[in-house]
Amino acid sequence: MFGAVIHAAGDVRYEERPDPVLLEPTDAVVRTVAACVCGSDLWRYRGLAPVPRPTPIGHEYCGVVASVGDAVTSVKPGDFVVGGFLHSDNTCPVCRKGAHANCVNGGGYAGCQAELIRVPNADGTLVSTPELPDDDLIPSILTLSDVMCTGWHAAVMAGVGPGRSVAVVGDGAVGLCAVLAAVQLGAGTVIAMSRHADRQRLATEFGATHVVEERDEAGAAAVRELTDGIGADCVLECVGTEQARLQAIACVRPGGDIGVVGLPHGELPSADLFWRNVGVKGGPAHVRAYLPQLLDLVLARRINPGRVFDLALPLSEVADAYAAMDSRRAIKVLLRP
Amino acid sequence: MFGAVIHAAGDVRYEERPDPVLLEPTDAVVRTVAACVCGSDLWRYRGLAPVPRPTPIGHEYCGVVASVGDAVTSVKPGDFVVGGFLHSDNTCPVCRKGAHANCVNGGGYAGCQAELIRVPNADGTLVSTPELPDDDLIPSILTLSDVMCTGWHAAVMAGVGPGRSVAVVGDGAVGLCAVLAAVQLGAGTVIAMSRHADRQRLATEFGATHVVEERDEAGAAAVRELTDGIGADCVLECVGTEQARLQAIACVRPGGDIGVVGLPHGELPSADLFWRNVGVKGGPAHVRAYLPQLLDLVLARRINPGRVFDLALPLSEVADAYAAMDSRRAIKVLLRP
Repeated sequence: MFGAVIHAAGDVRYEERPDPVLLEPTDAVVRTVAACVCGSDLWRYRGLAPVPRPTPIGHEYCGVVASVGDAVTSVKPGDFVVGGFLHSDNTCPVCRKGAHANCVNGGGYAGCQAELIRVPNADGTLVSTPELPDDDLIPSILTLSDVMCTGWHAAVMAGVGPGRSVAVVGDGAVGLCAVLAAVQLGAGTVIAMSRHADRQRLATEFGATHVVEERDEAGAAAVRELTDGIGADCVLECVGTEQARLQAIACVRPGGDIGVVGLPHGELPSADLFWRNVGVKGGPAHVRAYLPQLLDLVLARRINPGRVFDLALPLSEVADAYAAMDSRRAIKVLLRP
Repeated sequence: MFGAVIHAAGDVRYEERPDPVLLEPTDAVVRTVAACVCGSDLWRYRGLAPVPRPTPIGHEYCGVVASVGDAVTSVKPGDFVVGGFLHSDNTCPVCRKGAHANCVNGGGYAGCQAELIRVPNADGTLVSTPELPDDDLIPSILTLSDVMCTGWHAAVMAGVGPGRSVAVVGDGAVGLCAVLAAVQLGAGTVIAMSRHADRQRLATEFGATHVVEERDEAGAAAVRELTDGIGADCVLECVGTEQARLQAIACVRPGGDIGVVGLPHGELPSADLFWRNVGVKGGPAHVRAYLPQLLDLVLARRINPGRVFDLALPLSEVADAYAAMDSRRAIKVLLRP
């Protein structure tokens, strides 16, 4: 089979790799229907994270089960499935607390931008659809593998709920999904911080009540202007840079909460957070905890997070997909084998 | 009138000061019935925080209203009252969110280890009892000015609720009150981390289900042993040293929450918190938000946080009170004018 391999910064190749096989009785092998490139993949592509050796890459997928191990009971060959960017057993003490990203038996994959994927812990990871979904639903289902669940996670971690005011820092695919999540969770004021017209439009389509173009202190002042002068109850930090974290801290009200889902770069000013009683929580999303509910919303066509894909390419053109996202020609690229 | 003034590290004096007067129509003057020394007062006493000039000290009190300004409507001369260590107006946008410690019109006092105290924002700060309370209730009422509300705050910030597992780092008065708070909030397992027999006894009396004497990794291992091998859902950090913070991080489960109420010393390892999906929230307690409920519990004799006082002295012997707490001869010292 063929799949993407990153060889070095700026060098992603579509090349032949061995077909994955069932290694454990709890494994499944999934034939990919769609995959995509994540903002976090760009850290290596941009040379900001090391690539010590050629490495299969990608961690988002949906597809059709090709084979399952003897112990797998919840999915069978032919089922259409989606799974999270980390696999989880859904039974360990940590999963039972709903913290599936930290499953004691969980982990990652050997590259999901590929035609076939080995999925460990299939029962605890994959969720199947009742039937083969309509093709136009594929992009939205694919977002549940990471980006939509990650936006949702930011909102849950920040305690978004009915009537709360929310500011979203970051207008990439995760930030846009965080806007959608906040709206679905009943937030009142939802402020998208964005300076790109196309992303502003999508944020508004997802239900953002306001757009703030300013950054730094001017951005924080604009958020306060919309929130009784005190800042947002909940700020969703969907970037991961130090600048974004400081922006989030500047935008949150005293006693408010910041949900963080961008990979952490830079330290937190803990004394400032303490004196202002501001909470910070987040990390990799607990996809399996959110997946059943969000899949229902997608299949019922009540949410359409697949709108974050603004470019679709054949999987064989994965190198172009990286280049398009790196140069910001695309928010997020869908790949079809 | 007389009150405590700190002149330098190790030098607290009981001396004559001007009687406080009503400066604003929203002020009250309260004649102290009881005051006490806070662990945070010791930072200056021990030379860990500066004392640039002789400064009236103390921020915990209960007493009887002596006079009120023209705009005060909720309390009147003769009422028995308790107020938090910070005053608050209880009407600003931040107070309306329940974050009274960060009231936009709030602040501190000019020394509460004194016979008389000026209380700004009297309506938004003081809560009165229906009648003069029995004398044996005074210590518990006094704890609501800071230490019990601070322990409660730690528990609320960490999301303590029915069935949750809780570990409390710190066995000072705040830590012991945090144990009591966790039990009241319905926690299942409540682990007091303490190596002092008298404090262990009080923690158990307050409802702790387990005591862990070990510290560092051995302490964290003991906590995991009691929590399905994964760590506590909620950890209440009631010390403020870097060691205590690291202990809290080591004791919390993936996806869990740390409530922090000790003054922050040292930075947070934000990447480690992120990858483990651990939340951190806390700061100065929102006393006015908790006071009505906790005062009801005290007056109904359902909680007895005043047990944290293990020494009572005349206010005139305030210097001895500091010395006793500094040398750990006392957990917390009650002062009576």
